[in-house]
Amino acid sequence: MEDVVIRTLEKVELKDPVLVEGLPGVGNVGKLAADYLREQLPAKPLATVYSKFFPPQVYVAEDGIIRLVSNDLSYWKAKGSGQRDLVILGGDYQGISPEGQYEITERVLDYCHGLGVREVYTLAGFAQGRVVEEPRVLGAATQPARVEALKKAGVVFSRNDPGGGLIGASGLFLGLGRLVGIEGACLMGETSGYFVDPRSAEAVLKVLGKVLKLDLDFTALQAKAKEIDRIAQKIHEAEQRSGETTPAAGPAAREDLGYIG
Amino acid sequence: MEDVVIRTLEKVELKDPVLVEGLPGVGNVGKLAADYLREQLPAKPLATVYSKFFPPQVYVAEDGIIRLVSNDLSYWKAKGSGQRDLVILGGDYQGISPEGQYEITERVLDYCHGLGVREVYTLAGFAQGRVVEEPRVLGAATQPARVEALKKAGVVFSRNDPGGGLIGASGLFLGLGRLVGIEGACLMGETSGYFVDPRSAEAVLKVLGKVLKLDLDFTALQAKAKEIDRIAQKIHEAEQRSGETTPAAGPAAREDLGYIG
Amino acid sequence: MEDVVIRTLEKVELKDPVLVEGLPGVGNVGKLAADYLREQLPAKPLATVYSKFFPPQVYVAEDGIIRLVSNDLSYWKAKGSGQRDLVILGGDYQGISPEGQYEITERVLDYCHGLGVREVYTLAGFAQGRVVEEPRVLGAATQPARVEALKKAGVVFSRNDPGGGLIGASGLFLGLGRLVGIEGACLMGETSGYFVDPRSAEAVLKVLGKVLKLDLDFTALQAKAKEIDRIAQKIHEAEQRSGETTPAAGPAAREDLGYIG
Amino acid sequence: MEDVVIRTLEKVELKDPVLVEGLPGVGNVGKLAADYLREQLPAKPLATVYSKFFPPQVYVAEDGIIRLVSNDLSYWKAKGSGQRDLVILGGDYQGISPEGQYEITERVLDYCHGLGVREVYTLAGFAQGRVVEEPRVLGAATQPARVEALKKAGVVFSRNDPGGGLIGASGLFLGLGRLVGIEGACLMGETSGYFVDPRSAEAVLKVLGKVLKLDLDFTALQAKAKEIDRIAQKIHEAEQRSGETTPAAGPAAREDLGYIG
Repeated sequence: MEDVVIRTLEKVELKDPVLVEGLPGVGNVGKLAADYLREQLPAKPLATVYSKFFPPQVYVAEDGIIRLVSNDLSYWKAKGSGQRDLVILGGDYQGISPEGQYEITERVLDYCHGLGVREVYTLAGFAQGRVVEEPRVLGAATQPARVEALKKAGVVFSRNDPGGGLIGASGLFLGLGRLVGIEGACLMGETSGYFVDPRSAEAVLKVLGKVLKLDLDFTALQAKAKEIDRIAQKIHEAEQRSGETTPAAGPAAREDLGYIG
Repeated sequence: MEDVVIRTLEKVELKDPVLVEGLPGVGNVGKLAADYLREQLPAKPLATVYSKFFPPQVYVAEDGIIRLVSNDLSYWKAKGSGQRDLVILGGDYQGISPEGQYEITERVLDYCHGLGVREVYTLAGFAQGRVVEEPRVLGAATQPARVEALKKAGVVFSRNDPGGGLIGASGLFLGLGRLVGIEGACLMGETSGYFVDPRSAEAVLKVLGKVLKLDLDFTALQAKAKEIDRIAQKIHEAEQRSGETTPAAGPAAREDLGYIG
Repeated sequence: MEDVVIRTLEKVELKDPVLVEGLPGVGNVGKLAADYLREQLPAKPLATVYSKFFPPQVYVAEDGIIRLVSNDLSYWKAKGSGQRDLVILGGDYQGISPEGQYEITERVLDYCHGLGVREVYTLAGFAQGRVVEEPRVLGAATQPARVEALKKAGVVFSRNDPGGGLIGASGLFLGLGRLVGIEGACLMGETSGYFVDPRSAEAVLKVLGKVLKLDLDFTALQAKAKEIDRIAQKIHEAEQRSGETTPAAGPAAREDLGYIG
Repeated sequence: MEDVVIRTLEKVELKDPVLVEGLPGVGNVGKLAADYLREQLPAKPLATVYSKFFPPQVYVAEDGIIRLVSNDLSYWKAKGSGQRDLVILGGDYQGISPEGQYEITERVLDYCHGLGVREVYTLAGFAQGRVVEEPRVLGAATQPARVEALKKAGVVFSRNDPGGGLIGASGLFLGLGRLVGIEGACLMGETSGYFVDPRSAEAVLKVLGKVLKLDLDFTALQAKAKEIDRIAQKIHEAEQRSGETTPAAGPAAREDLGYIG
């Protein structure tokens, strides 16, 4: 089979659209943000991405219907002044091998280039290894002017973070994007790295909303954050009782915090 | 070499045939069921599937003759009223890498599509991690109508099982099948996951027989199940004597229970 | 680059040649036998096999000259009555991934088919996991008539050995060979599996010599076997002194026994 | 995407140029030497090598600008008598799989062949597993005459080192180079293997400078070596105080010594 298969669900004309990428990763921040954005706008299904570089797996929904693991493109047409058409990439997995990551990213970029995309924002989490009360949004970009613009939107460009660079889709969409004339930036929400982190996703989306002039309601995302807090608190108390001192959680509660988001 | 090589053994005209897949996996339930079905009907050799995504291995039969590891397609022509022609896929291995699983599944689906296949049943085991006295048959399908039909045949569609979806050939034949217009369902026999499980295979085949209007004799499969029981009992007793409490078995008896089936 | 690159060193006309394969593996028996055969005949360089499925490595000879790791084909023209032209495959490595094994084997088989090869003998070791004083030669073949002929030459076809089949080049040359019309057999010398085993290689070559009517002098191979015995004895004594009871060897002596052969 | 993508930055005419390769590896000696050579000459950007066989990663510079990981070709035009035009290969990574190493090396060799390259020097470290006060430069070459010439430049051709051959790019550029008519040699600076080793890089560059008639100033490289010494000394003292006896370093200091170079 082809390494990557992209099935178009709706043929659509977009005007200078911006690609927003958010796939599973650290704290699931990118995926939480992209999924929430898609629901809030709401965006419509555009195309499905299948690949032999994803796991050989189907999900089974509660009604018993299966679905092959995939990435998914949605689109949203600009409504207000200053807004831009959007293409949003979400999905179940990143490619499970380095080569697979390159192949999938390049094919999706090609497809989006064909839709007129020349700009990309990638959304991700940045693991600090400690609890982060008020997550900052760290940035990286393909052009100096873009760095300046994002600073004005509150993005932090730190000399030391991210030290080793970005690994995975959020970096690769920028790195390979440049090779095909797509410029952009990565927005990284600080997160502990221990839990899925809707609060960090909110911080990232607030910056994105400012940059793309989107009016987003964060009520549902904040409710999710509070639920995670509640579970984390329960775990903490259980550990206090059992005399544990590590941030590790009990199996059941941990599952609630699992990277399903 | 080509990634997947399919050698046709007999050119045959089939009428709207149904594909039945059963490869090695959890409790070897799928393979046991497919192999037993092939012997009972009996089905005739149709094609052999070789692939560089199988292990680089040959088996040596008791007469000293080697055979390259493979998957195998057999066919059976409908005899009675309401019956359908069948194509059965069995074999030594699933693809040993994720990419290999995709490649092999897609090539076999293509080949079967060429034979007229538009419907598939995949057979598998579902590991419960505990002894299962009376295995239920869990289901997953590509269409709601199919779910309803299978419920009537006694298949359980559980909200929670299988939680993480299906991994491997039994899921992939459904997921990739849909992309080429082949709809179907997976029948998963509950099993402990510790032993090969002919009883679970029987449960799966009983459902399949009902759905496909096949009249199957389960005597030989039940004899195999009793033999497994007998060996398991011996292991249990040996462990009792040696004071072990885990379900782990002694090396010799374990080998008898090995996933050869 | 091409997956496998075969460079012809000499264009040669061969008459119905037989391929003899012996690559590194259990006890290095196959490689020892093939290398010894090549030196004794002696065979002449025919072609070099390079592949990205070998390790990315060069060897450095004592004179400082490098050589890319490879497999190597040599040829020998029949001299006496009843003899056949030979093509011998030896080399530094088998392919280091399952797919690589398939690719390399198929390309070498194709190349040899082009030379007129329709028959293959693969040489290997069979690990018994215990010291073997008088190694038997076990067999596996592609045709019943071949089994009968080899039994007459002293080859043992055992119901139980090799139980799980043959893994690696010696099996694959038979399994893939059949698909392109090359029939043959595998000769497996029993060996402990702990050391390189020239004695097992000698047993294998004696059978091969009988079958192919080759008159081989085993003096040098027997000398090598005695040297291995001597080192093994030293290790054994050192272990006795240090109170060890396992067959594991001291680092220095072990290196002498290392699978360089 | 293509396995390896080479983007030319400047079209340049070179006269019988020599390729110098230095990528990350043991003691980072090769990379340190190639990078230093490029800065000292200084060499100009010629082409960038991207590949799906590198990690899916971008680096973020202090100004927030990302850069996809790559290898990089630079060129330098001969200025003095006896000098030759140079092409220098450096970069972030070697290919991360054996197949990737072969693919990248072959494509870079092809590209350089197109530039007129027929000679290559590969630079590397040779791990001795002990502190090396005055690193010798060990050699390996593709031709006897080259061995003799290098001996005169002080290169040591040892019967035992490197025993197992060369693994990775420095060997492969020689091994695959020969197949396309590019001859050459590897210069290996002795190093402990524990730290990045600018002193070993200096030893290698001194030999290279002699062979290629380059006049190099080593002040900055020597300063870097002293800094490494100073950090190593601090670690040693800290370990003395804490009673450790292994050469392992404290986490902070170790990071300073990390293979960033």
